[in-house]
Order: sequence, then C-alpha cells, then structure tokens
Amino acid sequence: MADPATISPATLLKDELDIVIPTIRNLDFLEMWRPFFQPYHLIIVQDGDPSKAIKVPEGFDYELYNRNDINRILGPKASCISFKDSACRCFGYMVSKKKYIYTIDDDCFVAKDPSGKDINALEQHIKNLLSPSTPFFFNTLYDPYRAGADFVRGYPFSLREGVPTAVSHGLWLNIPDYDAPTQLVKPLERNTRYVDAVMTIPKGTLFPMCGMNLAFDRELIGPAMYFGLMGDGQPIGRYDDMWAGWCTKVICDHLGWGVKTGLPYIWHSKASNPFVNLRKEYKGIYWQEELIPFFQSVTLPKDCTSVQKCYTEIAKQVKAKLGKVDDYFNKLADAMVTWIEAWDELNPSGASKSSDLPNGASK
Amino acid sequence: MADPATISPATLLKDELDIVIPTIRNLDFLEMWRPFFQPYHLIIVQDGDPSKAIKVPEGFDYELYNRNDINRILGPKASCISFKDSACRCFGYMVSKKKYIYTIDDDCFVAKDPSGKDINALEQHIKNLLSPSTPFFFNTLYDPYRAGADFVRGYPFSLREGVPTAVSHGLWLNIPDYDAPTQLVKPLERNTRYVDAVMTIPKGTLFPMCGMNLAFDRELIGPAMYFGLMGDGQPIGRYDDMWAGWCTKVICDHLGWGVKTGLPYIWHSKASNPFVNLRKEYKGIYWQEELIPFFQSVTLPKDCTSVQKCYTEIAKQVKAKLGKVDDYFNKLADAMVTWIEAWDELNPSGASKSSDLPNGASK
Repeated sequence: MADPATISPATLLKDELDIVIPTIRNLDFLEMWRPFFQPYHLIIVQDGDPSKAIKVPEGFDYELYNRNDINRILGPKASCISFKDSACRCFGYMVSKKKYIYTIDDDCFVAKDPSGKDINALEQHIKNLLSPSTPFFFNTLYDPYRAGADFVRGYPFSLREGVPTAVSHGLWLNIPDYDAPTQLVKPLERNTRYVDAVMTIPKGTLFPMCGMNLAFDRELIGPAMYFGLMGDGQPIGRYDDMWAGWCTKVICDHLGWGVKTGLPYIWHSKASNPFVNLRKEYKGIYWQEELIPFFQSVTLPKDCTSVQKCYTEIAKQVKAKLGKVDDYFNKLADAMVTWIEAWDELNPSGASKSSDLPNGASK
Repeated sequence: MADPATISPATLLKDELDIVIPTIRNLDFLEMWRPFFQPYHLIIVQDGDPSKAIKVPEGFDYELYNRNDINRILGPKASCISFKDSACRCFGYMVSKKKYIYTIDDDCFVAKDPSGKDINALEQHIKNLLSPSTPFFFNTLYDPYRAGADFVRGYPFSLREGVPTAVSHGLWLNIPDYDAPTQLVKPLERNTRYVDAVMTIPKGTLFPMCGMNLAFDRELIGPAMYFGLMGDGQPIGRYDDMWAGWCTKVICDHLGWGVKTGLPYIWHSKASNPFVNLRKEYKGIYWQEELIPFFQSVTLPKDCTSVQKCYTEIAKQVKAKLGKVDDYFNKLADAMVTWIEAWDELNPSGASKSSDLPNGASK
C-alpha cells in the first residue's frame, strides 16, 4: 500500500471523484472552493421548483438534475427520491459513474486550520479514504497511518494492516450540527475547537452521520447511501443522513470495511431555523429511540455478501420490526427496495460488487 | 449532576485521591509536579532492592512500600504482586483508602498545551472522572459534556445522561508508547500532535491501556486494576497495564461504566531500551493474538454484579481457555484469584461494591 503521507491525492483522483451538491439556490458558495473543487466534476441536484434556474459560477464542470430529470430518468422508481429536502442528493450518488463521492452543503465554506491556512477538505477526505481503517481495536494515538503516528504498544500485529475505508465523515467549525432542541437551548453555541484527529469508528458502534461534509467510496458502499424519504409528503425531515449512516455502518461492520470521522473541518456558516427543524424532527426524535436498538441488533446472514443484498435484508427487517412503530417505515422499506432496483438499473456492472468477507469481519 | 465546566476539581478531591508511583530511583521528577501534586497524598511502591533508600523531595505527603512491606502486609498472598517490574504499582491501589487513584511513571514530566501553558494532568483526569461517559453511541464532537460542546443531531436523547466514568486514560507527548518492534523501526519518532479531545471508548471495543498516565475510580473498578505477573521469574513484561486494561474494559462494559481516553498529555521524557523491551515483550506479542479474541468473546453471566465476581469469573475463563496457550496463564489465573482475596482482606467494606446494572449495560 502506498504511504498516504506521500500521496498527492488532489491530482490522483481528479477523474475518479464526483462532488455532489444538493441546492435550491445559486451556487455562489463555490467561489470560495474554486482552488480546491475546480479540477473536479460536480453533480448538482436541484431541489424544489424545477423551473427555477440555478446559477453556477463560471469555469466549473458540472451536470445538473432537477425533479423533471429525476422523474424522466427513473420513471416510477423516482418515488424513492425525496422532494423538497436535501435528501434528494442521493440521486447524485446513483447517476455518478465515479469511484468516489464527496458531498457538501451549499452553506459550507472553507475553514482555516489553527495556523490560519485554508483547509482543503476534499484532499483530507481523499487521504482518509485511501488509507486503511482499524475498526477491530482502538488505537489511542488515533489514525496510526498518519505521518508521525503509529500503532501503540499492545495493538495486535495481526490487525495492523487495517481494512478498506468506505466512509470519511468530516466535521464543522462555527455552527455545530445540533438538533432543534439543542439549537433552541444553546442558540449562541459555536464550535471553535479544532481537534486534530481522524479515527475509525469501532465495529459495532453506531454514530450520527451528517451529510454536510461527507465522502465515501461509491464502488464499495454506494448502494447503502440512500437518504430515505424526507421532506414533501413525509412525516419527518433531517433524518436522511442519519438513516444512511446507520444502514451504512451496519453494512460496513458486516462486510469488514471502515468508517472514519474527524478531519477535515468545513466552516458551517448559518444555523437553520430551529422552529422549522423542530417540526421536521419531532417524530424522528421519538422514533429514534426505537431505531437505535433496532440497528444495534440487526444481524445480517452470511450469504449477504454484497451491499445490495445487505441493504435489501435491512429493508426486510425494517418492515418486520419497525412497521409497527409507524406505517411510515413500511413505506420507507419499500422505497429502500426501489432504491436498490434503481441503483442496479443505472449501475448494471456494479450490481454484484461484493466483499471478500475477511476473517472476523462478519458479525 | 454538577456542570463539569464549573467544578474546581483540584480542590474538590484533595482528600479523595491518592497518587501511586512505582519507582526504583529518587523521585526528583516530583519537583516539576510540585504545584499540582503537593496537596495530594502519594503512595510510592518501591520496586527491586528494598535496602536501597528512595529520596522523596521535601514537602510531599507520602507513604512508601518496599518488597519487605508488601511481604509483611500480604503474607503468602504477596505472590500476586510482581517483583522487579513496575506492575508492582497495583499494590498501591490495594492499600489506598481513597475513592480515586492517579498513577504516573517517574519518567513523565509536565507537558505544555499549544498555548505554552503547563498542563495540570491531574486536574484534567479528575474532570474526566467526574463527568459521565457515553459508551453506547459515538458522539462525533467528542466529549459532549465539555464546555462549548454537546451531543450532535441524531444522538438519542435517552442516552444523553451518560454513565459513571470508571477510567481516564491520558496520553503522552514526546516519546510515544510504542512496542519494541516499532521502537526499533522508528527510533526517532516523537509524538508532537496535541489532539484536544477526550472521548469514551465505545462498549464492546478493546484498547491498549497504558499505565504511564492513568486515573480511575478505585471504588468502582479498583479490584479489576490488577497488573498481573510480570518481571522477575515471569516469562513476559510490559503487558501489565494491557492486561489490566482488557480485564477492566470487559468489566466496565458488563457493568455499564465508561472508559475515557485522550487528554491530558504528560511529557514522556525517555524511551526505554528497545532491545530489553523486545526480550520482555516477544512472548506477549505472540500470545496477544490469542488474548484479544479471548477478551473480545468473554461474556459475563448476569449474576456477576460486582467487580470482584466479574474478575473471578474472568480468572476462571483465563484458566479454561488460555491455559492451553501456555502454563503461564494458569499461574496468572491463580494470581488473579489471590489478588481479589488480598483486595477484599485489605478492603473489607468494599468487598461487595456492586453495580445497579442499568438497562442495556450488560452484554
């Protein structure tokens, strides 16, 4: 394996990574990202009214999909893509033909590291994705593959090669990603702490995956990155990325892949309206108390050797066990199956992408 | 619960915490720690030749035990305390009468934070121990109880009270805690990265616990902090703290208590001799490949409601499952039982300290 410290990732993955941006407005925020994003291809998923024109700054290479495009491309299967919610971004994952995806919200700007230097978030994500993960044992000095760090005394040698990294979850300076109740209670809280670490989230541990600043290996885990049914006509919002994160983590744990969190930071400019958020979230806050035990207890059978098979199995269990929490989960389970069908239709060669199930990787 | 941000811990726990130091030399290193340690009581465990006098700087309040004292106090049970190895420090945990223990090696000095300020390691450990842990779900902004941080969106509200913290594992700037092979390969590597974070190690995840800079709640977890049979007459060394860490983590997971790692840093001044270390470690490096799967699969029955019961059960399983790896583990299992007997003899009131087994805490 190449030493991640010597890789020049920005150059390396220029033709292997798409940046997916869901938006309802002109993409002026890209100006600040120009030095880092311009070499890459953008997939813009326009949310809401398709007749509205979205302005993209000059010089960017992009394709843009609005609701009419989604309906045209997916036909009846378009029902699985959310409308009037940034969950629609997962359509971009589906139509991409690249190995890697980086997705970012249009209210996220370039953050500065403690030395005052602009952080190239994309470059850090690529480093995270190209170096292995260590989900089976905790390394107290964090990422052991980083320059200046290693595995500490007591770390089993058999686990030091690590496993492929499927997901790189980045963080946010300024406005933290709080739920509505916390926003209401702490309206002035800002995240000013730059924690200089990347770590693997251990196997068997769930986490709240935020879609604001997220990269993943689409070839490995893409079909699990479904952002669910949110927004227009649905009883909840703001659980799209959470849902994707829980499904993804359970599948990565089963297939023996890693999920990292930590660096890079972006600058999250603006808190969304906590009152609107509360309306979107309140059912999710309640349902979540059942969802977490559900995902903590999901077990996938040995013959689930591909992400698609795992995901379809989870959909089955969602219907069986969460359908009684609310009928919404029956609809969601159906949409999960539709999503996989649509994914395989648009990605025929990747339909059988499977894991080698390394020793000890399966639950 | 008191807001940890407003606690003045150094004052608060003056009469509730002992500092345990294993040593073979004069304790000049205490001079640097004077502003932070002088209000506390020290328990010095002298390793090796008991006829040698250990000089302690003026003004410190301490008790000192050498091998003759250990033999006199424990009688035949003294066999469970290692000789010519810093593993003897656990005798200090046993004779303490305080609620909390901080243990530090005598080659560890005061580190500086990025602003150049001396780090009061003990104060940070106390903050870690007095605020709850979150072992059941990962918080991406690290310690949610720290000033300026909180639980992020998607963190279940039912888990936000956290659980009692049993262990606070601190880190090291300058000389990292590497095993002999890594020391040999990277003789010049220094840890210069100050990661400004404390986090809970998730339930079900093992970690390499280093005894160099470690604090714990003795009333909660003390009987599990046995540092095993190392040094004189034993086939391995440098796995004392690791062994204690694996036993402790399994028991904390079972009883629903938390283990934290991260801040505070100390300045580790001097790398030990890698050739000597290799001789001490090589069997451990090999055996460890069996130990980790063993500890990952240990399950404790429901009626193990006290640390002592848990620990005795682990000793039984060590004998049953690791005895065949090497006869050393039969001896170690016996010593584990002796340790618990000695602990209960010296700590009669604490012998039945038990957990309430909160919901979801047991494996």
